[in-house]
This record gives sequence, C-alpha cells and structure tokens, in this order.
Amino acid sequence: MPTVKLVPEDSTDPIVAEVFADIKATKKIDFIPNIWRALASHPPHLQLCWTRLKAIMQPGKLDALTKEIIALAVSATNSCRYCINSHTAAVQKLGLDNEGLGEVLAVVGLFNQMNKLADAYQVEPDILPRAV
Amino acid sequence: MPTVKLVPEDSTDPIVAEVFADIKATKKIDFIPNIWRALASHPPHLQLCWTRLKAIMQPGKLDALTKEIIALAVSATNSCRYCINSHTAAVQKLGLDNEGLGEVLAVVGLFNQMNKLADAYQVEPDILPRAV
Amino acid sequence: MPTVKLVPEDSTDPIVAEVFADIKATKKIDFIPNIWRALASHPPHLQLCWTRLKAIMQPGKLDALTKEIIALAVSATNSCRYCINSHTAAVQKLGLDNEGLGEVLAVVGLFNQMNKLADAYQVEPDILPRAV
Amino acid sequence: MPTVKLVPEDSTDPIVAEVFADIKATKKIDFIPNIWRALASHPPHLQLCWTRLKAIMQPGKLDALTKEIIALAVSATNSCRYCINSHTAAVQKLGLDNEGLGEVLAVVGLFNQMNKLADAYQVEPDILPRAV
Amino acid sequence: MPTVKLVPEDSTDPIVAEVFADIKATKKIDFIPNIWRALASHPPHLQLCWTRLKAIMQPGKLDALTKEIIALAVSATNSCRYCINSHTAAVQKLGLDNEGLGEVLAVVGLFNQMNKLADAYQVEPDILPRAV
Amino acid sequence: MPTVKLVPEDSTDPIVAEVFADIKATKKIDFIPNIWRALASHPPHLQLCWTRLKAIMQPGKLDALTKEIIALAVSATNSCRYCINSHTAAVQKLGLDNEGLGEVLAVVGLFNQMNKLADAYQVEPDILPRAV
Repeated sequence: MPTVKLVPEDSTDPIVAEVFADIKATKKIDFIPNIWRALASHPPHLQLCWTRLKAIMQPGKLDALTKEIIALAVSATNSCRYCINSHTAAVQKLGLDNEGLGEVLAVVGLFNQMNKLADAYQVEPDILPRAV
Repeated sequence: MPTVKLVPEDSTDPIVAEVFADIKATKKIDFIPNIWRALASHPPHLQLCWTRLKAIMQPGKLDALTKEIIALAVSATNSCRYCINSHTAAVQKLGLDNEGLGEVLAVVGLFNQMNKLADAYQVEPDILPRAV
Repeated sequence: MPTVKLVPEDSTDPIVAEVFADIKATKKIDFIPNIWRALASHPPHLQLCWTRLKAIMQPGKLDALTKEIIALAVSATNSCRYCINSHTAAVQKLGLDNEGLGEVLAVVGLFNQMNKLADAYQVEPDILPRAV
Repeated sequence: MPTVKLVPEDSTDPIVAEVFADIKATKKIDFIPNIWRALASHPPHLQLCWTRLKAIMQPGKLDALTKEIIALAVSATNSCRYCINSHTAAVQKLGLDNEGLGEVLAVVGLFNQMNKLADAYQVEPDILPRAV
Repeated sequence: MPTVKLVPEDSTDPIVAEVFADIKATKKIDFIPNIWRALASHPPHLQLCWTRLKAIMQPGKLDALTKEIIALAVSATNSCRYCINSHTAAVQKLGLDNEGLGEVLAVVGLFNQMNKLADAYQVEPDILPRAV
Repeated sequence: MPTVKLVPEDSTDPIVAEVFADIKATKKIDFIPNIWRALASHPPHLQLCWTRLKAIMQPGKLDALTKEIIALAVSATNSCRYCINSHTAAVQKLGLDNEGLGEVLAVVGLFNQMNKLADAYQVEPDILPRAV
C-alpha cells in the first residue's frame, strides 16, 4: 500500500493536471503510472521530477533503447521492484527480446560481482589513458 | 593498499600464466590490470571470473559499447572506484565523448533518484503488457 | 512470511516479557510490532537492540521528529519496506503533513542522485572549513 | 582523479557561466565546488541538476538545517565520500556541534542495522494508522 | 510476477535439460528453484551461472555451512527477498538453530551499522599487520 | 581526513577512558583503532557501540573466525574501506590463509551477482521447508 493516497488521474490541481496531460502525451499512454500519482501528493516535486525525467530521457547521443537499458541496469542494481517492472516492459516494447534481456542482466550480474571483488581486495585503480 | 599481495605479471603458476596471457590477447593490452593480479592469489577463482567475464562481455545481441555502458552504470550505482575508472576509460576508448558520458551519467543519476522515490512511496507496480 | 516464527506477545520468557512491556510503555502502544517479535527468537539480541534503540531515539540535541525523519531517510535510501512503513507512520503521527513528507523525500531522492554523480565523476572532496 | 577534466571556474560557456554565478550567489561562497565543475562537462545536465537542487534545498516546511541533516543521512548511508564531506561541513556551518553530529550519525547507524534485520527476518509491515 | 516466463521443469532445450538435471542431482532436490527457471530464458547464461555456483559452493577450505552463512549475510545486506528465503532454509537444513541464526543476523546487523559509521566519520584505515 | 577530530588515546573523559581501556584489554592490542577514537567525540554513543559489539562478537554458537568472516562479507558487500581492512586483518590473524580468503570473497562475489539476478527477474520465493 502506498504511503500516501494516490492522486486521482482527473485531478483538477493545475500543476498536476498539466503534468499528467504531458505524461500521457509524451509517453503515448492513456493512464498515469502509479509513481506519478504518488509524487502528485506534493505538486512542485511532481513537476520537478517529470520535467527533468523528460529532458534526460529524450534521445540524444544515446538512443531511447540504450537509455532504457541503463535505467533497467540501475534499477536492478538497486533492486527497485517498481522500476524493474517498468523498465523491463519499456525495453521489451522497444524491441529487446529475451536473449537481449538475458545479455543485459548477465552484464548487470557480472559487475555487481566484480565491483565487490575489486572493493574487497582494495585494488588501486589502474593508470589508464583518458579521453578528457 | 590491496589486502593481498598482487601476483606478479610473470607468474609461473600454470593457471595464472594461461589466464594472464588470455587477458592480454583478448583485451589487446600489454599489462595485467590490478584486479586480475589480486584475484590470482586464489587461481581457481581467477579462472572462473575471467572465463565468465570473457563470455559475457563478447558482443552478442548487444554491442561492445552498450555492454561497457551497462558496466559503467552498475559500477557508478555501486560507487566502485576501481571499476568506474576502468569502464569510463573503456567507453571513452570505444568512442563515447564527454557529451555521451554526460548522458549516461544523467540517466544513472536520474534513476538512482527515481528508484528511491518509488520505494519510499511504496508504489505498487503498474500492470503493463509483457513481451515474454 | 518471516523466516522465524514470531514470538507471541504474551511470551513468558523473562527477558522477552520485560522488553515487550517496556516497548509498549515507551512507545505508548498496545501491541508489539512484528520486528520485535522476530528478534525475540534470540532474546539476548532483542534486548541489545531495544535498549540501544531506546537510548538513541530519545530526544537530545535533536527532537523526536528530526530523529524520525533521519530514520525515514535512511530506510528509504536502503529501500526497507518494513521500516519505511513504520517511520512514515511515525513522522505523520508527530505532525508532518504530505507537503512536509514530500519535502523529506525530495531531499532523499536528490541526494541519492547527487551521491552517485559525485562518485561516478570521482570528484575529490572540496577543502572546506571544519568545526571540529 | 576525476573522470573528466574539471571545467575552469571562469568558463565562458554561457550556460556554465550563468550557473556558476548563481551557485556563488546562492551559497554565498567564492569558489565552485568540484562536483559542479565536473557536471559542467555536459552543460545541460549541470543546469538541470543545479536548478533542481536549488529548488529542493530552499527552506519550506523543513528548515535548512533539517534538509542538510537529511542530505548527510543519505550520503552516509550511501557512503559517498565527497558528499559526506560537504554535508558535514554544511551542518556544522549551520550550528550543529559534535554532540548533535554524534546524534545524527547514531540514528543513521541504528537504522542501517534495523533495516537489515527487518529485511533478514522478512518481517511483514505492521498495520498502522496513516495520516493520508 | 517474474519478468520472464519461467521455463518449464521438463524443458527439452539440451543445455537447459542438462543443467536442470545437474541441479537436482547436486542439490538432492526433486524440483527446480524459480531462479534457475528464470535464468533458463537465456540458456548460455543459465549454464555459466550454474557451473560457477556449483564450483564455488562446494566445500573447500570452508565447509558448506560457513559458505551458506556467508551467502545469507550477503543476501541480508543486499535485502534480497528470494535469496534470504533460500539461504535461511539452507542454513537451517544444515543444522543451524534459531539461536545460531540470531547470532548470524546480529553480526550482520552490527556491521551494517559499523560500516556506515566508519564511512560517515571518514576514518582512515588502521595500519595493521597483514598476512599476505 | 576524519570529519571530527580523533579523540586522543589518553583522553581523561571518564566514559571514554573506561571504554578505551576495555577495548585494549578485550582485543589484546596496545592502541585504539581510529573508529573508536572518532566515535569518542560523542561518548554515550561510543559506549553503546562498544558494549554492543563486545557482546555480539564474543564466541557463542558461532566461533570467533566465523563471526569475523561474516563481518568481512558484510563489509565487502557494503564496500566499506575501513572495515574491509580491519576484518581482513582479523580473519588472517585467526588463521585464514589466502586460499581461504579467496573462498570467502568468491562466495561474496557470487551472491552479490545472484542477489541482483533474482531481484531483476522478480522471482517469487520458493516454497521451502522451514525449521522454525
């Protein structure tokens, strides 16, 4: 059960109504995902979160699928149930099949292991060429 | 300081020597990164780690850059200093410039935030179409 | 399902009975929250945990609400379902409304993002005045 | 060593220059903390991060010290070296002494423990009154 | 609900069938735990994971119970619901009673606290004798 | 640099002096590790932490080495630099050689991977016999 009452999809709060309409138009969906209905309990934060997510997730140097793959990798590493569900659906919608999903998660699992080994052995960073 | 003595690059242990040679050949480098020299303190584990990393990181459905981007996203989410250093260098070597790197980390930062908000509001997963 | 059988609220184990009575008296509640009933499966640890929590959570330099806000911030960052539920209820009981809760979680979300960006760019700490 | 070249404090990039000036004015400091100089390697992300941080951190229902305490609690839970340094200095600047800092960290330590115990025993959330 | 369709226990995929048979024989169980049925959606990764787990978990310098205790300590620290359930059952099957389990989790809770305090105070590592 | 001034080993604060003496006697060492000198900046918390650690770490159902191995597994999973250093030295002092250490860390690495895969595939817990 959410810790706040989810704001109705037809809220008449002007900030909420504007953000909800933009979420539907931008994502081409006809419902408001639960996270946005929870965030709407504090409208200014809803607006900050949505405008930022919209800006960051639009295709740029990286395409939409790569950005969703990163979102899934982060969500899996943080074990976030809600976001894993969302971003798995998103990468599938963008065309990644089970084999591709298996590859994403294999890399995620691998580096969750390697990260801890590198930390556990307290290995010093290698001196590597940087492109900066 | 590493918690074990790093195994010399010219180790004559047969397992270590074979893995070290394969690391150089596969990665086309002429030195052994510190993590492998630490893992070599227990050769069977070195071998398990390397053969698995080699298998998972070879291009498949996902190309090499996408896999390295996932590795960086996981390492950043886990705050692993050694691995962030390695995989930042790797994505740069594969052609990602500062703008692309900025986009990767913007998505990483965004979902580290969104993951915690979704968890904090205890939002139930949306019912979404699945491609399974 | 808990991994151990929850100890009944009317346990006659002397350590458990004493701690359970003190929990009810201190928190002014008439039931024993599940976490304490689980910890009671190993009474010495129950006692250690409770006496320490009681000591740390009593108002001092910081008032009760601020301490509960910290508890919520930590629990949200760790994504602990049980504790998020408890401490959200606690801050609400102490008078924080949805706008205040929204502010707490906005700060929590923000620094979960900023922490990972600072780590990902491997930024050196600034030289700042310290009050020590 | 940061993974990107820190942008100079006197950068002439218009977005960077504007944000840097606003950071100095808002925080009443005469230098640019390293995190902002790193983020400036991708100016649009710098701007998104700063405008959002500025909005969230201004006093509202919660005062400035409480917000900085939350920032420290999150940073400590995430073990972020850079941010722990910044926010410890910030709470000290706002008047928290060593005893108060000790209380903050005692609560942080306590719930990092309790969170894991609640998860480890897989305790079901208590049914609690909610103020929503 | 898993994000992929669990592969049936009687799968005729040759890699899957071989791994599933080995899981049953090695663990002396007559069903396939859900994690392996999910991993089977990408057979090469299933095989990599299983052969590695089998190699690492066989008794060596450390006996089977100690290895399962480590698995539980890691899973509790990561708050992994599925794995906490599995490894709690495993340590119980290997003879650890509630008092022993209480001791394991007491140590887990303790160092989740101490880790964060050490990080929060930014304490430098002690100079200690090493056995390397 | 620690965020507080480390309290001198010869502090005359009565609580600090008593705890420091007990640390030396219990651990059979002739110096005070840095973490305790930092915690001493808030003496009541120092005392709470030490008495609890002393109680939990004494041999019970589990021997001293197993408890130190758990401490190392937790510290490695949390990537705590200070504590990894301390507990690696502790397990070595108690007789674990590099092969044994390699086994501990192999199990730690393995389940940091498996935990994330179980979470990422959102696998339901298996129905298993419990010994409760």
